[in-house]
Order: sequence, then structure tokens, then C-alpha cells
Amino acid sequence: MLIGGIEAGGTKFVCAVGDDHGKIVDKITIPTEGPDETFQEVKKFFKTYPIEALGVGSFGPIDLNTKHETYGTILNTPKTEWKHYDLLGRLKADFPIPVYLDTDVNAACLGEYLYGAGKNADSTLYITVGTGIGAGFVYQGSTYQGTSHPEMGHIFIEKRGDDRFTGSCPYHGSCLEGLASGTAIEERYQVRGDLLQENETVWELEAHYLAQAIVNYIMVLSPERIILGGGVMKQEKLYGMIREKVREMVNDYVAIDDVEELIVAPELDDEQGVKGAIGLVFRDEDV
Amino acid sequence: MLIGGIEAGGTKFVCAVGDDHGKIVDKITIPTEGPDETFQEVKKFFKTYPIEALGVGSFGPIDLNTKHETYGTILNTPKTEWKHYDLLGRLKADFPIPVYLDTDVNAACLGEYLYGAGKNADSTLYITVGTGIGAGFVYQGSTYQGTSHPEMGHIFIEKRGDDRFTGSCPYHGSCLEGLASGTAIEERYQVRGDLLQENETVWELEAHYLAQAIVNYIMVLSPERIILGGGVMKQEKLYGMIREKVREMVNDYVAIDDVEELIVAPELDDEQGVKGAIGLVFRDEDV
Repeated sequence: MLIGGIEAGGTKFVCAVGDDHGKIVDKITIPTEGPDETFQEVKKFFKTYPIEALGVGSFGPIDLNTKHETYGTILNTPKTEWKHYDLLGRLKADFPIPVYLDTDVNAACLGEYLYGAGKNADSTLYITVGTGIGAGFVYQGSTYQGTSHPEMGHIFIEKRGDDRFTGSCPYHGSCLEGLASGTAIEERYQVRGDLLQENETVWELEAHYLAQAIVNYIMVLSPERIILGGGVMKQEKLYGMIREKVREMVNDYVAIDDVEELIVAPELDDEQGVKGAIGLVFRDEDV
Repeated sequence: MLIGGIEAGGTKFVCAVGDDHGKIVDKITIPTEGPDETFQEVKKFFKTYPIEALGVGSFGPIDLNTKHETYGTILNTPKTEWKHYDLLGRLKADFPIPVYLDTDVNAACLGEYLYGAGKNADSTLYITVGTGIGAGFVYQGSTYQGTSHPEMGHIFIEKRGDDRFTGSCPYHGSCLEGLASGTAIEERYQVRGDLLQENETVWELEAHYLAQAIVNYIMVLSPERIILGGGVMKQEKLYGMIREKVREMVNDYVAIDDVEELIVAPELDDEQGVKGAIGLVFRDEDV
């Protein structure tokens, strides 16, 4: 049985055909243009494969509340051509097969849960720290969905006293994303993050903010595994710094059996999104 | 079918006999002494009723990870007689019927979900703001459990610039509980909270911190209903203040259909804990 998967991102669409064991048969990456141009390429790719269902992990914010009339519609994105776009409607029109829709981060989390660093961890949190910060969550084998969907990158944390940056989030100023995303790093130092590699104070502050956020996720979700991915996490020294700070901040209030096992890197090499999108077909309800 | 329920709190044990429709047949409140004295009274109460199962919502922190050897044991409580006490072992020894164990806040949340302010809300968060701050969560009809259990009162939030108080939490200083619990209010102003009733700045700051925390819970859990209970919330003006601040802080980043419907008061008049404890029998797995 062949399944289609789409990691529908703001800059690129990754489309793949695979099976229910995480095997990818074919894959293509399409730059995200307007909906019409993009879906023309997407359809062309899938046309030659007899896929029986399609799973999609989409950028957002996207309305995933089935009770809403705007269910399946992209909401307030700065990408004007996609703003208020009926993504689910388009998918159903282009693909007359069962379609499964979730957020990009939930799909990525499901991918790692099924085939990567979250294997066998019943509650797996996947955090991506890049231009923005987002997180997906798998609980008891399915992606977590609230009344709309979580936006975990936008939690409030405590700004460190010596940090004079006011924050880059247009909605919340100094929320987590406003203080610790790649965008925030560049705005704070007025230099691209990868040029700051040797600057210890940069990564010390970054680890401090990410650790605070992770402690909050631990206090709220108590996940068994926390996977940290995304461009900023290419600074591999961050893992050790974050683990140490998380342990200090939790201060034994809740038991952390092994922080090296708790906080880990992804294992699927940028394929977690599309593998998870395919996985949605087996884990989520048909829409 | 008669079911026993215990709301096992640090200051009192509420025991009740009820049915699976939320009806309470008999109820007693026992002050919490050491385990032996307390359980003697508990057994005496239940002896006359042919209960077929027992649900217990317990104070904590308590180990609820079934993979742990210490599963069912009270952990680091300041109440020395209960520290490291095998609560589940005692319950099973005293009551040779199926026993269901959860946190006190999860039981309270389940009570409100089944019979009170959370009715029909698939994801219901119950926050209690008293001496400490805790929260329970019901998701898809069952109480939420992570790898141990959430401790939502201990998330980090941003301390307001004009607040000179260093926080009352012995573990985290100025976490939410350290800044906004009843204990924090009394330590900050050196006056009992109920004597501060007319002092607007007290409740303005309190609403500010609780709103921040609620925004964080919204970003992580996206709950359909948020119920605010506990002693501090007897200051009823807090509800309106919190609703307004939550709306401001979210700043339309995620849709809040109706903030009056989202953030509400409990409806079960201090019976949510014991009714939820009875409800555990129908909603959780037998331990």
C-alpha cells in the first residue's frame, strides 16, 4: 500500500511516496510559491504513483478545529497568497482519496516517534528552533490536538536581567520565540547566527531561554522524550548546556531519571516531517 | 453499584460513597493525621457500605509512573509522616477491591468535567490557586498523565518589573507558585490575603501573573475550557481581570472564540475532588 505525504512548509513543500514502515519510495522538494503554482507541481509528482491516502503536515497557523467553518484553512500568515487559504479544500479537490491533516510540527513529532528519536516513548515532544519556534506532541500514540492547536513557541518565560533586547515576536514581544528563535538571535546581535558560533555568551543565553521553556513543557506535559531540532540546534554544544540548565532549574522538584535520555537530537535527518505526514494516515482520523 | 472516593489532601481527607452519575450517598471529612490514624478513620467510614471499587485523588508529589518501583508512593512532601509513604500499598491492603489512583488536581478536574463547569468540553483544565498552585487536565475523556505527572504550578513566567518580591517557592523562587499562590501573596505583603481584599494593586498583580500562566497553558495545551478554583479565586473580581488580560496577552495570535466561555469558575462547590475520585473508577485504568 502506497501513501502520499506532504510536509507543507512556508518556504518548501516536501512531497514523498512511502509505505507504513517509514520507507520512502520517492521524494521531491518544491519551493513554496502561490497555491496554484505549488499544487500544480505537487499533483505532477504524485500522478505516477497509485497512492491510496494522503497525509499532510502544514505550516500555520491553521484552523484544525473540526467544529469551525474555517476548518482546514490557513489563518494569519504573512504569506499573503496563503492567508485564509482553504488548504484542506484544495487537497480534497486535487486528491480524491482520504486526506489527513495536521500541523507541520505534529507531523515531524510523529515521524520521530514512529521511526526516530522518540521510538517507544509514549509521550514525545518535538521542538524546532529555527526562524520561529514551534513544537509538536505525540501522546499515547497520536498527535496531540487541543481545541485549535498548540503554539508552544509563544509561551512567556522570564527575560534575563542582563538581556536588553525587547524581543522579536510581532504578537508578544519577548515570548520564547521573541527571545530565542533564530530571528531573535539575529535581531539581538545584528549578525547572522552562524557567524556567532564562537561567541559563548550568545549560546549561554540561548540555552538559558530554551531550558526555561523546556522546564515549562516538563511541568505541563511531563513528556518521556524531548527532541530538539531546527536550524539553531545545529550548534551542537547547545544540547549539553540545555541539559545542565534544565536539571538545575527543575531542582529535583520532579524526578528526571536521565537527562541524556530525556533531551535528545532528532534522528531522521530532515525527513521527520514527511515521514510523519505519511504516518498521520495510520494514526489520525480521516478528515 | 456503589463506589468509594477519597480526596486525599494534605490537611483533610474527604471520603464519599457514590454512584456513577455523580450522586453522593454519604460523605465524611477527616483531618489528615499520620497514615495510621487517618486510615483507621477512613476504613471505619467505608466499612458499612458495600463499595465495589475505590478511586483516590491524592496530594503529592506522588509517583504515578507505573514503570517505577516507587509507583504509588508519596515523594518529597514536607509532611514527614507521609514522605516516601506507600499510599497505593496501604490502599490495596485496606481495600481488597479495584483501586484507581491519580493526583488530587486530576481528580478535581475530572469531577468538573463529568458533572460541573467542564461538561462537554473535551479538553478541560482545572487550576487551583490556594496555598500552592496546581492543575489537572482531562483530555479526550481521561485524566492526562505524562511520564510522571504534571506540576503545572511550577512553570516559569515573567516577573513584573515593579515586583520586588523574590518568590516563595523553595524549589524555584519566582515560578508561578512562588509569585502568585496564597503563600506568595502573604509573604509579599506580610498580611493575610483576605485582609487585602480592597487593595486593587494586589489583585491587579495577581491577575497579571495568573493570566500569563493561563496564556502559557493555552499555547501548550489549547484547552477548550479553563476552570479556576481554590481559595485565592474567592476574590471573584479576579475572573474578569484575568479574562481581559489573557485576551490582551494572546493578542489574537490564536483564536479565542469567547473568553467568558473559556475561563470559568468551578460549579461543584468543593465536591469536585471527591466526585472526580469516584469518577476515576469509570475513566482510568485499574491499578
